[in-house]
Parts: sequence; C-alpha cells; structure tokens
Amino acid sequence: MPKTIAFPAEALIDYVVRFFTALDVPEIDARIAADVLVSADLRGISSHGVIRLHSYYGDRLRKGGINPTSPLKTLRESPATLALDGGNGLGQVIAYRAMSRCIEIAEQAGLAVTTVRNSNHFGIAGYYAMMALPEDMIGISLTNSQPLVAPTFGLHRILGTNPIAVAVPAGEERPYVLDMATSIVPIGKVAVHEKAGQKIPIGWGITAKGELAQDPIDVLNGGALLPLGGPAELRGYKGYGLSLLVDLLSGVLSGAAFGGDVGQVSEARNADVGHFFAAIKIENFRPIDFFKADMDTYIQSLKSQPKLPGQDQIYIHGEKEFDLMEKYQKEGVPLMVEIVESLKEAGASAGIPFDLRPIE
Amino acid sequence: MPKTIAFPAEALIDYVVRFFTALDVPEIDARIAADVLVSADLRGISSHGVIRLHSYYGDRLRKGGINPTSPLKTLRESPATLALDGGNGLGQVIAYRAMSRCIEIAEQAGLAVTTVRNSNHFGIAGYYAMMALPEDMIGISLTNSQPLVAPTFGLHRILGTNPIAVAVPAGEERPYVLDMATSIVPIGKVAVHEKAGQKIPIGWGITAKGELAQDPIDVLNGGALLPLGGPAELRGYKGYGLSLLVDLLSGVLSGAAFGGDVGQVSEARNADVGHFFAAIKIENFRPIDFFKADMDTYIQSLKSQPKLPGQDQIYIHGEKEFDLMEKYQKEGVPLMVEIVESLKEAGASAGIPFDLRPIE
Repeated sequence: MPKTIAFPAEALIDYVVRFFTALDVPEIDARIAADVLVSADLRGISSHGVIRLHSYYGDRLRKGGINPTSPLKTLRESPATLALDGGNGLGQVIAYRAMSRCIEIAEQAGLAVTTVRNSNHFGIAGYYAMMALPEDMIGISLTNSQPLVAPTFGLHRILGTNPIAVAVPAGEERPYVLDMATSIVPIGKVAVHEKAGQKIPIGWGITAKGELAQDPIDVLNGGALLPLGGPAELRGYKGYGLSLLVDLLSGVLSGAAFGGDVGQVSEARNADVGHFFAAIKIENFRPIDFFKADMDTYIQSLKSQPKLPGQDQIYIHGEKEFDLMEKYQKEGVPLMVEIVESLKEAGASAGIPFDLRPIE
Repeated sequence: MPKTIAFPAEALIDYVVRFFTALDVPEIDARIAADVLVSADLRGISSHGVIRLHSYYGDRLRKGGINPTSPLKTLRESPATLALDGGNGLGQVIAYRAMSRCIEIAEQAGLAVTTVRNSNHFGIAGYYAMMALPEDMIGISLTNSQPLVAPTFGLHRILGTNPIAVAVPAGEERPYVLDMATSIVPIGKVAVHEKAGQKIPIGWGITAKGELAQDPIDVLNGGALLPLGGPAELRGYKGYGLSLLVDLLSGVLSGAAFGGDVGQVSEARNADVGHFFAAIKIENFRPIDFFKADMDTYIQSLKSQPKLPGQDQIYIHGEKEFDLMEKYQKEGVPLMVEIVESLKEAGASAGIPFDLRPIE
C-alpha cells in the first residue's frame, strides 16, 4: 500500500471551496465543485478527486482556460428535453446544474434528457447519476473525454475513456451505481503501474506500433488504451461500440467536440467536452414500492448465489464505493503523499496555503 | 464454411407468414414477425433468424405457450412514457408495436421510453432500434433473456445475455447500429464450436465447477457464459454491470420477470420477458443537418485512421451487417443445411410444407 495521510472530508471540502473562490469561482459554485471532487476521494476514486486541483482546475482557471462563472445557456428546450451550452465553465458546476434541471423536467414529464456542449472534465460521472436517487428516479450520466483509446484494429488514440454511469434506487438495499470507463482501465491505472515499476496485464493497451503492451511506458508514450473486451476474440469491438456510443450521445448530439477533437487537459483551447444526462421517473412505469421490493429481491438473490472457488462475495455495482465512503467519513479521507504535495503546490499558486491538520 | 442453401428473402418472408397464420397468428402480425426473423438472417445473425421457427415459436404457439393474438395492454401512460403488458404474445409483434408507439410519443415529446412486461424472446434487438432511423431519431432497444451468464465471482447462470441495441442516423454514411449481447458471446456460438469439435477461447465461459472452460461442452452442460470483459483483471465486472443494467431497465422497471426467473425457451410457463425501448428526437437538441454532417465526419475520421499491422479496415458498428444485407438481398439468404431441415420439420408440424425453391 502506498503511504497516505488522512484528512476529515469536511475540512477537505472547505479547503477546496477556499481554493476555488480565490480563483474567482462564486462560492455557491465552489461548494458544488468541492463536493464532487471530495466525493471521488471518499468513494475511493482518487484519480478523479482533489489530485486534479492543481494540474487541471487550478492551472486552467488561473490561465483563463476555464470560465470561473460557468455561464450556462439554454439552446433548445421542450417538455422532456433540454440542450445547454456550458460556456466553458467548470465541468462539475455545469454538470450539477444540468442534472438538476434534468430531474426537475423528469418530475413533470416522467422522463428527461439534458445535453451539454462546451464544458470541461466533470469528475466522476456517477455523482450526477446518483443525484436522481433521492427523487426515486433512475439517473444516467455520460461524458466524452480526451482521446486515449484506439478503436478495434486502429493504431491511434481517437476515443475517450468515455464513462457510463447509471444509478438505480433500491429499498432496504443500497442502490445500484454503475460508473465505468468504456476502456478496460483508465490511463491513471497504467501510470500507477509505471510509477511502481510493474508490468501491465496483456490487453490493457497497445504500443505505438500496435503491439499488445506489457510495459506501461509503451502505452503512456504514444501507445493507446484498449476498449472493454480487449482483443477481438474476446469481443473488444463491443467496448469500442460503447465508447463510440457515449461520444455520439454526449459529443455529437450535444454539438460539442467529439472523437480526436475533444480538448486535452493540457491544451489552452476550450476542451469543448460534451455531456448527456437522463432521468427516468420510476412511478411512471410501476408503483415505486413494488420496484424497490424487486430491486431488493434481485440484489439479495445475486449476493446469495454460489461463489467461484476462493471467492466469498458477489458484488453489486457501487457497493465497494459505499463501503469506502462510510469508512472514510468516519476515519478521514486517505490521500497519497504525492497528492498532498500537489495540493500544497496548488495552494501556493492560488495563494491559499494547504494547511489542513491530518488525522493522526 | 458450413454448407448452405440460398433462398430469396421475399419467398422466405412469405413462407414464415404462412407458417404463423396457420398457427392462428393474424396476418398483419405474422408479417411483422416474419420481417423481424428474416431480417436477422439477412443481416448475418442466423442464430436469431428462421432457425427459431420450429423449436421456439412453432412449438410454443402450438402448445399454447404463446398467445397468437399478442394482446397489448396499456398499464401506465404519460406525455413521454408508456408501460405495456404484452399479454404473453409473440415477442416480435409486441416489440414492433411498442417501439412504434415509442416513436409516436417521441415525435410529440422529443423523447420517449416504453417498457413491456409479459413478453417473449423478440429476436434481434437491433431491428427495433433501427425503426427510429427514418424518423431522424436515435433508437434504443433492450431486453432481458433466459439466464445463461454468471456474475463476476459467481458460479451459476443467473443473468441473461441481455443485449444492448442503439441506432444513430448519419447523413451520407450508413447509420451506426450497435447490437451486442452483454456476454462475450451468445450461447449459440459455444454450441457451434461444440458441433465443430473445436475448443473455445479462454474467457468465453466457465465449467460447472467455476473453472475457465476450453471444451464447449463444459459450458453447455451446467457451466455458464461470462460477461463482456472476461476475467477480473480485464474488468469483466463491467460487462456484468451492463448485463444487470439491461435487466433492471427491461425486467425490473417494466414489472416483468428478472434474473434467474426469466423463462427458459423450453419451459411451458410464460417466459415473462421484459423489454425497454427509447426514442430521442435529434432535432430537439440541435439541427438534424448539423448532426448528420458531424456523424459523417466522425465515421469518416474513424475509418481513415491508421490501422494495426495486418488490418485493412476499422469497422463502424452495423457496417458488416449492412454489407451482408445488400449481398443477400441480391443473391438470396444462405441457410445452413441444418436450418433448412428444421424448417421442413416445422412446416410439417404446422401443416405448411416448406417447399421453397432454392436459388441455384
């Protein structure tokens, strides 16, 4: 295990709020962005948490690459649909507002889709899908992202890791929360192996020459990630199809950039990321109590299935993350030493020193 | 290549219509079912085509296991949603009507979802998704199916191969049509290897003891298919999550059977299969001409990407099937000899001899 330092979640959120407000983000928006970022760390998805404060949000806000006021504009509107322009604001703030409006519309229409163009990296897709849960709705959240994935039989990065997140409420049981990249792994996972001097499993990515990579550096330097499914005989073209689908819905349908044109985080130009959100009101299809009772039955039946030799659990999607969140809310959020260092650098450049007291 | 006999598509459709009407299916419904079944053969998905006439549709109709009049009942209705009961009718007929109504609703509301409970196997999911294309809509079609797939770390079949189909229109280019089982392969693919005396690639399925199978018979006899992604290190739990998601949307949301309770084709009881259809009107999000132009750009950019060594094509989803359809519409639909034999048996039992003249 890498060395970590734990901080109380609330203190981390307060710090991120101070950080963003120092960069001219309105406080109400800063609270949204902070909650999304720290939620990622709380759920154990540290690649999408406060580690991004410096290199991405801080740097780009400071250099004018992101509009701190996130001015949302309505492009088209109908009783069940809404098309927005994010004004190149903070992805988290735009996505939070877009999903909030999607849920409001679905409350009336039974169903809603909201698309967003001209946005930025929005953090964990699952956060917005989960916003539907307290309303007894199914929430869907998709986004395209910078090109990192090669299509089946292709040599170069042209697709994003384009995640699919869907949240479905249950009754006594915890909800189902799928939040998955459509690549086998995110690029951060390959970087972690590289730092640790470890090989990567065959199938995660290819080298610049198109060979299956074992050395992570070959993926990072000019290679590409592979879509879910891996090689053709295990049907990697299905993962390629899902990645493309996410881009068609979040990029092309919204009028954002798509494919190889989605902005790299490191680029100065607008990233023009696109999102797709949907909310489905369960009561419009069947009584919510019946639905929730069936969800509980299904989850319990999956968990009580006979296990493979050596396994003692069948997991429901989101379960591990809920467990971590409960633990980290009590014990504090563990941040790797490198992340703490990057927060200190970010704080110094924004004039808001990172001075939080760790939990002993 | 297995030995095949080719028949004109139109003649096949006419035969299937005669077959179904002899089993008390109204002619208008028989035409729908025939078109869906033969479309599968035309698109090269023969596992879902006329091969099913005997063992499934014929047998179950004859024995009263399927209601030939497919009496659809509306359960709940709102401006953008519709919940239906399929009355244990023919899956193809129910699905066609449900998707037709979904498209009508989306024409008004910009967006629609229709769920169906109490249905049967509906053939190729892509057929219904593609019904949205001429209306300049995105079509989505999901269904649950009899349990064949083990969840990650599970030993037994409890999930269906639960397909995801999405169709997105383009301009000059052919549309994007994803139509994928959420397992690595359908069970029919394993059966084909068994018949041919071939091993299956590691990852497709497990034995009754939970070991990775190489002999197809071990999957067929008490083993299980694995979800897309395969082993845990290549992220099979994402495929498991997608399979479960399809069942939550088509089974639990509709009020149909779900998980291990979805009826086996061979069982006498109602299969109580559930479906989920959605239609999204593109014009409600951005001008359709801009959308189609971007689709063309995207498809052309994917196809012109540098290829892996030894590959000369990057495919768009649906492309191979469109190619086959054009070819088979000209040259006839090639049916394997075993399929022709099964049609003869089916015809004999329904009193409608299979007497079509093959193309020489």
